[in-house]
Amino acid sequence: MLRTVPPDAAVVPIPTFEDIQAALRRIGRYCTETPLLESPYLNQKYGGRLLVKAENLQVTGSFKLRGAANRVGALTADERRRGIVARSSGNHGLAVAYCARLMGTSAVVVVPDTAPAAKAERIAAYGARVVTVPMKDLAAVAADVTAREGRVLVPPADDFWVVAGAGTVALEMVAQAAKLDAGIDVLLTCCSGGGLTAGCLLGLSETSPATQVYAVEATGFEKMANSLAAGECVDLAPGGHSICDAISGLYMAKLPFQIIKGRLAGTFAVTDGEAQAAMRVAFSEFGLAVEPGAAVALAAVLTRKIPLDGRTVAVTLSGRNADLDLAGAALRQV
Amino acid sequence: MLRTVPPDAAVVPIPTFEDIQAALRRIGRYCTETPLLESPYLNQKYGGRLLVKAENLQVTGSFKLRGAANRVGALTADERRRGIVARSSGNHGLAVAYCARLMGTSAVVVVPDTAPAAKAERIAAYGARVVTVPMKDLAAVAADVTAREGRVLVPPADDFWVVAGAGTVALEMVAQAAKLDAGIDVLLTCCSGGGLTAGCLLGLSETSPATQVYAVEATGFEKMANSLAAGECVDLAPGGHSICDAISGLYMAKLPFQIIKGRLAGTFAVTDGEAQAAMRVAFSEFGLAVEPGAAVALAAVLTRKIPLDGRTVAVTLSGRNADLDLAGAALRQV
Repeated sequence: MLRTVPPDAAVVPIPTFEDIQAALRRIGRYCTETPLLESPYLNQKYGGRLLVKAENLQVTGSFKLRGAANRVGALTADERRRGIVARSSGNHGLAVAYCARLMGTSAVVVVPDTAPAAKAERIAAYGARVVTVPMKDLAAVAADVTAREGRVLVPPADDFWVVAGAGTVALEMVAQAAKLDAGIDVLLTCCSGGGLTAGCLLGLSETSPATQVYAVEATGFEKMANSLAAGECVDLAPGGHSICDAISGLYMAKLPFQIIKGRLAGTFAVTDGEAQAAMRVAFSEFGLAVEPGAAVALAAVLTRKIPLDGRTVAVTLSGRNADLDLAGAALRQV
Repeated sequence: MLRTVPPDAAVVPIPTFEDIQAALRRIGRYCTETPLLESPYLNQKYGGRLLVKAENLQVTGSFKLRGAANRVGALTADERRRGIVARSSGNHGLAVAYCARLMGTSAVVVVPDTAPAAKAERIAAYGARVVTVPMKDLAAVAADVTAREGRVLVPPADDFWVVAGAGTVALEMVAQAAKLDAGIDVLLTCCSGGGLTAGCLLGLSETSPATQVYAVEATGFEKMANSLAAGECVDLAPGGHSICDAISGLYMAKLPFQIIKGRLAGTFAVTDGEAQAAMRVAFSEFGLAVEPGAAVALAAVLTRKIPLDGRTVAVTLSGRNADLDLAGAALRQV
């Protein structure tokens, strides 16, 4: 398939299925093929097959490593010499810092002063230069460092390579489901900026085109639902709160939205309490440690927002980088 | 290799390497090939390669499924008709109940009245008949049901097939390590009755004979250390306490001890606090939810009871069936 790069340079090209396949080859050395697991007990209880893609087992703790590895792996020699920049308080920053070290380039990660100290410390331990700024200055400082030092900015979702990398989750899932004699009727993805959801739609486009894809958001942070209703990217006003920090960003990413629009089967929103209950089920039924924002797709199934109805429904468990105090409280909250 | 069944009927034959290979083929349909994971961060911090075998992701929540599946899978048609019996409050009972249902036989699981209600309920949900008795009557009631109903008793460790099934953990581990370009210099197993440790020694005997194997016990429940010192199986007096319930049994199993004696490199003992700290590391560094007794081998590495010293050290994370209140408390206890 020929990739069509639109003549309008302002429009970012959309990755093709072949770009997702190339991404899978590119990231293979750096990322774990995470298992696709199921629980006979839950299958029986919910009346279908529930498959969970355990991206919480990914090396740096989330699926974000896939996009970062694909982006950094595709840098030119010159770009590699100049280095990269990311703005993130969490999973994306960890992934970028880890990849930079592994692939012989340097990274600056701009983190908000509200970020947990442990995450900033780990990012630094991976060898990145950490720049701490007030949340409101995050984008400006990242842009400034990028321009001043001639580095390449690696966005968390709004990027050709990052979306293609995220799409490898779907390629693996379809192949793993086939080994379990299953086809994926429905896929639920945890969703914030939309990178994972968009990547999976592209990855499924040729391997399992009939799969219905839903995006699951944190209640109060329904950027996708709002954007779909408006027909364009709608950002959120600051001030909301959710324990699902990994998916409580304020911005809908443009490239993912362009891909998702018209292809998504729907959205669901999950409360903090529902996410905590899903964290408990991930622990006791699957042996998986997940962070709240990574439990929302599972939560949508457990709360029967979407019934299994004899179908095979896959969900992403997209990360594990929870504050342990918060995770401990979630487990005890019965 | 010819299996030598000793003429003395009282002596249980020891599984050969071929028996472990046969077990792996027999259980393949029922058990997950659990991943072997590592953390670049911990590798760097501890100065070597640490590989964790995530048996906490096993279908019924622990490696016990392997032994149960091998035992039930090898029943004769007549035995299958008569059914099986197990005595267990936890992981073994879950595994036996699950296998019985899957392989078309019936199970009676005798549980102590001190067992958590959730575990007994799950055993019943898998379709087993649950008989609740005072702990002191556990063995007698199980023997009675076995005799009266003509069923086959499936012991948790002291059994040819159960040990052979547990040994499949080592076969998988060696093959998975090879894919990571690693050989296993040292293996640390979580240890109670000794079934997993014995099985792994047999599984390694031809695939990685130079691997040094250590057994890790809960402090106050050092049956293996005591038995090795005495040169024979030494049981414990009741009355001790550990949060590591999965490995705080009182009995050293005879068949495993026969295999382990003279082959084990040594033992370590881990406190409750050290096990809890390892549960936190399993969560944050690997995304794995483990129960305290399944975290002791990892704990031995994290507390540097055995230094990595540039070597590759593998540990078993053998189960996840923790009380969630207890697990939550462990995560918060920093």
